[in-house]
Amino acid sequence: MQTLRVELGERAYPIHIGEHLLSDAGLVTPHLDLPKIAIVTNTTVGPLYLERLSQALLAQGVEVISIVLDDGERYKDWATLNRIYDALLESRCERKTTIIALGGGVIGDLAGFAAATYMRGIPFIQVPTTLLAQVDSSIGGKTGINHPQGKNMIGAFYQPRLVLADTAVLATLPPRELSAGLAEVIKHGLVRDEGFVAWLERNVEQLLACDPQALAHAVRCCCEIKAAVVAEDERETGVRALLNFGHTFGHAIESGLGYGNWLHGEAVAAGMVMAADLSRRMGYIEQADVDRILVLLKRAGLPVAQPGLTPERLLELMALDKKTEGGQLRFVLLDRIGSASVRGKVPAALLQETMAVHAVD
Amino acid sequence: MQTLRVELGERAYPIHIGEHLLSDAGLVTPHLDLPKIAIVTNTTVGPLYLERLSQALLAQGVEVISIVLDDGERYKDWATLNRIYDALLESRCERKTTIIALGGGVIGDLAGFAAATYMRGIPFIQVPTTLLAQVDSSIGGKTGINHPQGKNMIGAFYQPRLVLADTAVLATLPPRELSAGLAEVIKHGLVRDEGFVAWLERNVEQLLACDPQALAHAVRCCCEIKAAVVAEDERETGVRALLNFGHTFGHAIESGLGYGNWLHGEAVAAGMVMAADLSRRMGYIEQADVDRILVLLKRAGLPVAQPGLTPERLLELMALDKKTEGGQLRFVLLDRIGSASVRGKVPAALLQETMAVHAVD
Repeated sequence: MQTLRVELGERAYPIHIGEHLLSDAGLVTPHLDLPKIAIVTNTTVGPLYLERLSQALLAQGVEVISIVLDDGERYKDWATLNRIYDALLESRCERKTTIIALGGGVIGDLAGFAAATYMRGIPFIQVPTTLLAQVDSSIGGKTGINHPQGKNMIGAFYQPRLVLADTAVLATLPPRELSAGLAEVIKHGLVRDEGFVAWLERNVEQLLACDPQALAHAVRCCCEIKAAVVAEDERETGVRALLNFGHTFGHAIESGLGYGNWLHGEAVAAGMVMAADLSRRMGYIEQADVDRILVLLKRAGLPVAQPGLTPERLLELMALDKKTEGGQLRFVLLDRIGSASVRGKVPAALLQETMAVHAVD
Repeated sequence: MQTLRVELGERAYPIHIGEHLLSDAGLVTPHLDLPKIAIVTNTTVGPLYLERLSQALLAQGVEVISIVLDDGERYKDWATLNRIYDALLESRCERKTTIIALGGGVIGDLAGFAAATYMRGIPFIQVPTTLLAQVDSSIGGKTGINHPQGKNMIGAFYQPRLVLADTAVLATLPPRELSAGLAEVIKHGLVRDEGFVAWLERNVEQLLACDPQALAHAVRCCCEIKAAVVAEDERETGVRALLNFGHTFGHAIESGLGYGNWLHGEAVAAGMVMAADLSRRMGYIEQADVDRILVLLKRAGLPVAQPGLTPERLLELMALDKKTEGGQLRFVLLDRIGSASVRGKVPAALLQETMAVHAVD
């Protein structure tokens, strides 16, 4: 097991990474105020891992309540959040009850927002079970739900007390989920670490084959990058925005297609190609850089073009992007592979050209 | 104008108290990130003060959006919160747009929770227009909505950047609202300052007559107490819980009767009498102390007994109180007039006796 820390003063917390941590309740119990836990999971992850985690906690004398939600991005909404509140109230969960999110990004966001807002905030632990959640969404305290008009529009920054990344569970991931996770893995390299991008180019097949050592290395590298960025800029007033590379376009694709039709990582992959293309049109990087990114994403099994949304529709969806300032869109663009900046003042003509490139059906 | 500060490190903020501050937009503009404000108010307060506040801001070059909600505790729910989100999205409000709550406690809680959760948090300013909001709910960052099963069950601690208490607006308060505010004024004295209780006993008629000097003094004293308590214990892990004196019973009365049938302050008044009665049964205070509290609340025009809810129903409603720990109810009880403590281990028989005392219809 390896342990990193997210250095956030009184809100600092550890990230444990290793195989079979799910059964090690001794890692969880030191973080509890009361021996009572509500595990939030979904109908896909629950049957695989809920019993194992619950039994380990019960054996330590912890009372466990299970809240099993429907699976999918389309359920990241108020109605599902309310199901969590109702279950917490029904089970008489108190301010010192801890919520555990057992699942991928959607479960982490929903359970985290419930923890942030139930009785104005109760303790929270992330047990991410997808690659995407282990390398990205479980770290840093972004929680929330979607609004029909925009992804993650309603939410809170609310840090967990612990992140427990059991890399053994990645072996049961469907290939499509694994690829979606690789999109965020590649993103970490593109905005912060060219050496890691080069490592990914050498190891993408091992990752797709669920090679344990390769996965453990990728998870650790991403967690290191994410933890450092979050520690520097918890509430995204600066450097943290760079981790949204590909997300301005990606969120527009996700909500334009209807939540859940593309996985988040798939939309981010296509969005990163668009952001790279725009970086090239702005003169920051070369076509060779764009091609290099495109090839790596393709090898990871990811889409590399948006699915045919019109530029008008994309613009409309992007107008609500959270980076928008004074009505002006701002984009995370690459300076080179391994480094990015937030840029305003992108000429409309160049943006139009980027948006007009899309996948042929 | 007098200015206090809530000392909360990087989240510190001023409370300005004085007459006709509503028209002084120069007090607001230094706290804005962008010259764009969404004012959240209701159908009662809006017609009285929205125009005045908006015009003052417009004259300073600030873009103003108005969101006018229905009036009443029964609207402190998800549906109304969603109306705020929809309006913010429709008006393209961004992360640097500021929300102003113009109204009483319900508007402050709703608008504050919207600010806490829209795009994971945007700037927020409180302009309280009721006595209750000026002396209590606008200070300290408690925001949220009610759940059918319990008051303020969903919410967040989210501090405003500024509280602007215009005492001139209190002159338009209906007598019932003024009395409800006096309940929280009296509460501040009972838990922290016997001298202030004695002052209230000498000045309650002046307060009910809206004497400007008396009101200004009461608002300032309460804000001083509240600001000091919040600075010491922002997230209510200790001393801040004392400000919930009367609220365990009060919240149960409010939700037992249906939100909005009694005003919050009215339920708190009856709840304080119950808490004082329980303090006496526990041997902490004398019957003479209970009588003194009862007389003051009566003089302030407040109910002094619960409206006939059965002990069983009250217990059921109180089981979800946010102070409950390990399934055990905890009460804020008086040590003497001017001092209170949180107490667990209240014998069921004594609690039953307290709950059995109620108003005769």
